Amino acid sequence: MSTAGEDYVLLEEPSLTQVANFINAFKKTRVLVLYLNCEVLYKGRASSKLSPGDRLLITKPDGSLLIHEKTKREPVNWQPPGCILHAQVKGNMLVIRSIRLRPREEILVLSPHVHVLLAAPCTQGEFRLWGSEGEMIELVMKNPSLIEPGLKPLKREHLTPHGKIDLLCEDSKGNIVVLEFKRSTAQLSGVSQLKRYVDYMKKVYGDKCRGILVAPNITSSAKSLLAEYGLEYRRLSPPSRTGILKRTTP
Amino acid sequence: MSTAGEDYVLLEEPSLTQVANFINAFKKTRVLVLYLNCEVLYKGRASSKLSPGDRLLITKPDGSLLIHEKTKREPVNWQPPGCILHAQVKGNMLVIRSIRLRPREEILVLSPHVHVLLAAPCTQGEFRLWGSEGEMIELVMKNPSLIEPGLKPLKREHLTPHGKIDLLCEDSKGNIVVLEFKRSTAQLSGVSQLKRYVDYMKKVYGDKCRGILVAPNITSSAKSLLAEYGLEYRRLSPPSRTGILKRTTP
Repeated sequence: MSTAGEDYVLLEEPSLTQVANFINAFKKTRVLVLYLNCEVLYKGRASSKLSPGDRLLITKPDGSLLIHEKTKREPVNWQPPGCILHAQVKGNMLVIRSIRLRPREEILVLSPHVHVLLAAPCTQGEFRLWGSEGEMIELVMKNPSLIEPGLKPLKREHLTPHGKIDLLCEDSKGNIVVLEFKRSTAQLSGVSQLKRYVDYMKKVYGDKCRGILVAPNITSSAKSLLAEYGLEYRRLSPPSRTGILKRTTP
Repeated sequence: MSTAGEDYVLLEEPSLTQVANFINAFKKTRVLVLYLNCEVLYKGRASSKLSPGDRLLITKPDGSLLIHEKTKREPVNWQPPGCILHAQVKGNMLVIRSIRLRPREEILVLSPHVHVLLAAPCTQGEFRLWGSEGEMIELVMKNPSLIEPGLKPLKREHLTPHGKIDLLCEDSKGNIVVLEFKRSTAQLSGVSQLKRYVDYMKKVYGDKCRGILVAPNITSSAKSLLAEYGLEYRRLSPPSRTGILKRTTP
């Protein structure tokens, strides 16, 4: 065992009992990384079984659990924050159980051998994002003529029974205009979403209503569906902070 | 440095040059886990900046990159498979760069200090999933009366310009029936998706067309939108393998 000034703990080839005790003691304060041989069973909205092998298991103080294999961006098994973690040794096996209550979902990790355990006090840093949909909406609220001359923003995040409208406007002819923003390529689902809002607004406020999908790009199938529905498209990219990588690179 | 039979490598408090060399040598064959102090810059579809702090960085042989903090199931920054990774030391900083070519996205990790580096030869295990949408569709194809008496399956995964229809059927009165399956609670977006398919089928084959959303559950807003569109709902849960966790627990 070794402890540094940063207060992390690293165990190499620990016993299963050591690991179980360690998980239960530190699961609420540290990010725990286990490199272990294990099989994984899941039961909840579906069921799955992962055959034995060496993989990474990560648990976080908020109850998240991730199991990563050799490839893919996504973990092969996972639990969201709010789950209850417990470890114990049964016979020759370390049994790690993560339970989600609603909906009920359970991950069971069975491990005959843990190679490495790292208890890492991780930061929750300040994360700043530019170029989000929120920033696109703000940009249009300040410069509505980016969409068309004479457009007047009325309300942001207008709640309907069929979802939240990004930005509600009025055009120069007195029509209500529903704007739906996508920060990357707009898809069929975005068209359907906009259609849902426009249908609702027409039902409530009458036919003087238009819908515009605002995105830096659109698929051809989404574009033709949009035309079919009598809805519109405006190309707009999220505002950029060019040079952010250059400025700060040493 | 320590190497076990499983051929993993663990470096504690390595020098930055050691880490850079190690990353470049093993990035294509091992899962690398770094517990390090770093800040992270991202530029692509949006831009972001993550303030300095201690976190986990994971790279995989397929080019995926994940940066995890103290909380959340999702990494704070990430790249998908297919990215190009490179590490070097500039001055007193370890600079790890991950580049995605299309769309162009870049993550830059700047680290003054690496606490731990683990090179882990992870498995790609056999993952078996039960209770998926695919299994629901198979269940209905074999037992169409679960939906309604006299229903006859025609075609699975029927492609339209507006997306793929899960299962196309014909009812006892000769209507075309579009079935859309969800393995968990059906939402507004599922209703819109079904509406899109039904609208298309009506346009092509005429008005003798119905749409049914099949799911174990549905939100109240989705249910009322469904009714408004004249579409239907059938409750059906994915087939379960009960006892899978019990059977295998030691």
